[in-house]
Amino acid sequence: MKNTTPGIHRGTLRRFRAELEEVMRTVRHLRSAIALLSWDQETQMPPKATERRAQQMSTLENLVHRELISPRVQRLAARAERIFPHLPERDQRMVRLFLREHRRATALPPSLVEELARTQTLAVASWRYAKKENDFYLFAPYLQRLIELKRKQAECYGYAEHLYDALLDLYEPGMRLSTIHPLIRQLAQRMQELLQWTRQIPYQPPTMLPPAPCAAQFVLGRHLCVAIGFDPERGRIDYSAHPFCTALAPNDVRMTTRCSEDEPRTCIYSLLHESGHALYDQNIPDELADTFAGDGASMGIHESQSLFWEDIVGRSLAFCRWAAPIWRQYLNGMLNTPWTHLTAEQLFRALNYVQPSLIRTEADEVTYHMHILLRLEIELALLEGNLRVKELPEAWNSGMDRLLGLHPPDDRTGCLQDIHWSLGEFGYFPTYSIGKLYAAMFWKQLQRDVPDIEERIASGEFELVLSWLKQHIYAVGALETPQEIVQRVTGRTLTIEDFAEYIAAKLQHVYSATL
Amino acid sequence: MKNTTPGIHRGTLRRFRAELEEVMRTVRHLRSAIALLSWDQETQMPPKATERRAQQMSTLENLVHRELISPRVQRLAARAERIFPHLPERDQRMVRLFLREHRRATALPPSLVEELARTQTLAVASWRYAKKENDFYLFAPYLQRLIELKRKQAECYGYAEHLYDALLDLYEPGMRLSTIHPLIRQLAQRMQELLQWTRQIPYQPPTMLPPAPCAAQFVLGRHLCVAIGFDPERGRIDYSAHPFCTALAPNDVRMTTRCSEDEPRTCIYSLLHESGHALYDQNIPDELADTFAGDGASMGIHESQSLFWEDIVGRSLAFCRWAAPIWRQYLNGMLNTPWTHLTAEQLFRALNYVQPSLIRTEADEVTYHMHILLRLEIELALLEGNLRVKELPEAWNSGMDRLLGLHPPDDRTGCLQDIHWSLGEFGYFPTYSIGKLYAAMFWKQLQRDVPDIEERIASGEFELVLSWLKQHIYAVGALETPQEIVQRVTGRTLTIEDFAEYIAAKLQHVYSATL
Repeated sequence: MKNTTPGIHRGTLRRFRAELEEVMRTVRHLRSAIALLSWDQETQMPPKATERRAQQMSTLENLVHRELISPRVQRLAARAERIFPHLPERDQRMVRLFLREHRRATALPPSLVEELARTQTLAVASWRYAKKENDFYLFAPYLQRLIELKRKQAECYGYAEHLYDALLDLYEPGMRLSTIHPLIRQLAQRMQELLQWTRQIPYQPPTMLPPAPCAAQFVLGRHLCVAIGFDPERGRIDYSAHPFCTALAPNDVRMTTRCSEDEPRTCIYSLLHESGHALYDQNIPDELADTFAGDGASMGIHESQSLFWEDIVGRSLAFCRWAAPIWRQYLNGMLNTPWTHLTAEQLFRALNYVQPSLIRTEADEVTYHMHILLRLEIELALLEGNLRVKELPEAWNSGMDRLLGLHPPDDRTGCLQDIHWSLGEFGYFPTYSIGKLYAAMFWKQLQRDVPDIEERIASGEFELVLSWLKQHIYAVGALETPQEIVQRVTGRTLTIEDFAEYIAAKLQHVYSATL
Repeated sequence: MKNTTPGIHRGTLRRFRAELEEVMRTVRHLRSAIALLSWDQETQMPPKATERRAQQMSTLENLVHRELISPRVQRLAARAERIFPHLPERDQRMVRLFLREHRRATALPPSLVEELARTQTLAVASWRYAKKENDFYLFAPYLQRLIELKRKQAECYGYAEHLYDALLDLYEPGMRLSTIHPLIRQLAQRMQELLQWTRQIPYQPPTMLPPAPCAAQFVLGRHLCVAIGFDPERGRIDYSAHPFCTALAPNDVRMTTRCSEDEPRTCIYSLLHESGHALYDQNIPDELADTFAGDGASMGIHESQSLFWEDIVGRSLAFCRWAAPIWRQYLNGMLNTPWTHLTAEQLFRALNYVQPSLIRTEADEVTYHMHILLRLEIELALLEGNLRVKELPEAWNSGMDRLLGLHPPDDRTGCLQDIHWSLGEFGYFPTYSIGKLYAAMFWKQLQRDVPDIEERIASGEFELVLSWLKQHIYAVGALETPQEIVQRVTGRTLTIEDFAEYIAAKLQHVYSATL
């Protein structure tokens, strides 16, 4: 990036930067406070504080919005647009991020913002109730209203090709339905073929691991996270009902996990997943932290990092070779179970066998994309008006049958399983598959750059992996778009080929009786 | 309070209230977020997050200030002053609290606010360093500058009698130096006499309790807090370096304690102290929570509650009769120490013997007020220019000699022991003694209202005490001034007599060989 500033006075540039930095810092610090209120709610808050906590968070959200539409920020945005052509490239990139936030905040009339917030609150509450009561129709009227509002929201933001793009852009800037829809369809098709292939193999890998006490799982998980590079002096690990990672700043990154005695994989692999997010968040350059470039580049890029560490590194045979002795060391003698005999191969197979299942968050790497395709096509049909809300359960169930040959016994394990739609998060689901595709592309490039990478992983040299990711991905924060990052790192645009190749190669191992 | 609204249109009143409530709610929710950022810093935050946490908190403080001086709030304040005479009494009280906040925020020029914040940050850092290095002169230049700024601050706020009143008013609204200075002098004089008396008694009570493991102390302390009325579903208890209590809302009140194996009194009585604050905070009516009446009425009234539970109830013989079996139950068999033999009388005496000591926070109820008088007179002399900062250690040491016959061996245990001055908290110390005087006045009234109160305490009927405090003190939040509360509850104005009587009666017991 150039450092010269042709056509702009140095004092003007300095003042402009100072004002822009102050606005971004205010918004970022408010968002850090919201992140803390939210983390605290999931991990520390007294049970009876729920109601006012929601109000406190909403007040701070409103202050962010008020700041972004304030007359001062309006004037700053106008100035930014005027001087944009004269700015150095790095400033231009920052200004683009600022203008995106500003335009998003001003695009919606206050009445729509208010109604969206109110409807989402009701929708989440009714979704919880409907899930508990196992009855989609308790949720349906709120979902109906939310879809109408999301359509309006998309119209306010504007789009070039399809209404869906305006929503997708909130999570994956620059991505379009016309790119992602065919890709995910092809991906699901390839995964179908792979699934059929696994079913024809005579050898079927073991699927079970022994139980282990929660406390032992937690310290084992923590050990693995720290080993791959999570810095416990700049973050924390706690329990919560649903695992998540949140960053208050690069020096304060907090992840959580959950634990079930019978299923140690959940705790350990939730932690490795969240570690991927946490490593990204901890390693964004500190000078970007209080700017709009201080987050990851997109949901897809962020998810590429969690899946990179959870699936590509964490479920590899190389990683299992390094990790199996540590599993044995931490779980040995616990609950009188045969952890002493755990081999790398046994662990590797138990982490990678393929099995269609009802719940997306429990799906394996192959069938996962069928879950995403189902959601993408349903939300698209809902937004386009080609599917009525009351027909959703039927569409869901027939999709599950078509894609995975499964028949959800009820709404709870069917179309009510995910919280996303109740939060108004339409356009979010595809970023999970996109993240997976990015991750495989990055992995292929890393293999090219470091040919013996698997041996290095098997001997626990994770610093090598982390420094590669820092240099190629983390260092730019959100200063580059997801497309720019992928192009720069891999020399290519989004493709399903690397993922398909990676997963097929892995399954060859998983489903071969000898390794 | 009247509900009629003569001379004001109902719609006007409704709109005014709505706008006032919205401003207060915004400020209160920002302050709740600041409280959480601060609690988190002391209890949960990763060690390397310190620097940016300070910046985040400062941003939110600035947003509070920006809100209170905004054109919208300026207009609201002008309207409030115009319609004030036509408002019902309750609204008038709320408006007074609002105008006090608004005037305080607008009274100081931004340059002074900024310099105060910067100087305090440096002063706290240099105080910590000076205390660690045991050298007052490392702190002196920052204290010097801070005193100059506090004088300017007081001049900006204005005062009727003495510059000190403007600062005292921040913590104890309506209180004046001309009231409190003679009272604390007399109080210290009476305590001197009492101290001399205890020294002439042949019987000297036991001063030691056995050690106990920290975890056992913590659960014992928690048991006692819950027994007196702390609701653990609307609050939390954690460890921190310095015990404190903070309220995010009445349903989210958090206190902390610290623990030393050798000195179980510290953990238990820190918890009872913080419980007093917590009970006040948990029982402020929920409809006041998001208003400027949602805190305690003043520091003095708040401290009256912590001292009421810690000292007056908690260190009473009646309480010890109830609590001694619980101490035995929790600590029995721990560390092979003689907890099985602990009697109520032994506990009572070990909690109440009098002994001059160097450190304020460890002082007994008698000598405590000498520590306060020393600090009050020194800060007064500094502000008046009658004492130069470089002469402070000498003034401190000669005061300790005169008041308590002690000679601090160094600055660390002398004039550097408290953080308050480095935080710019001049005018704060007297509220500790004021709180003690209020507490004794409330206790005397409670004894009148419930003549068998001590027997009720001995049988653990704390609900009676709590409901009395709720009804008489907690119910009004800050809608009444401290003076109004004390006058209404006790029928009298601030006096040292109730405290002097209470402590003399107690010491008669402590220093008698038979009970």
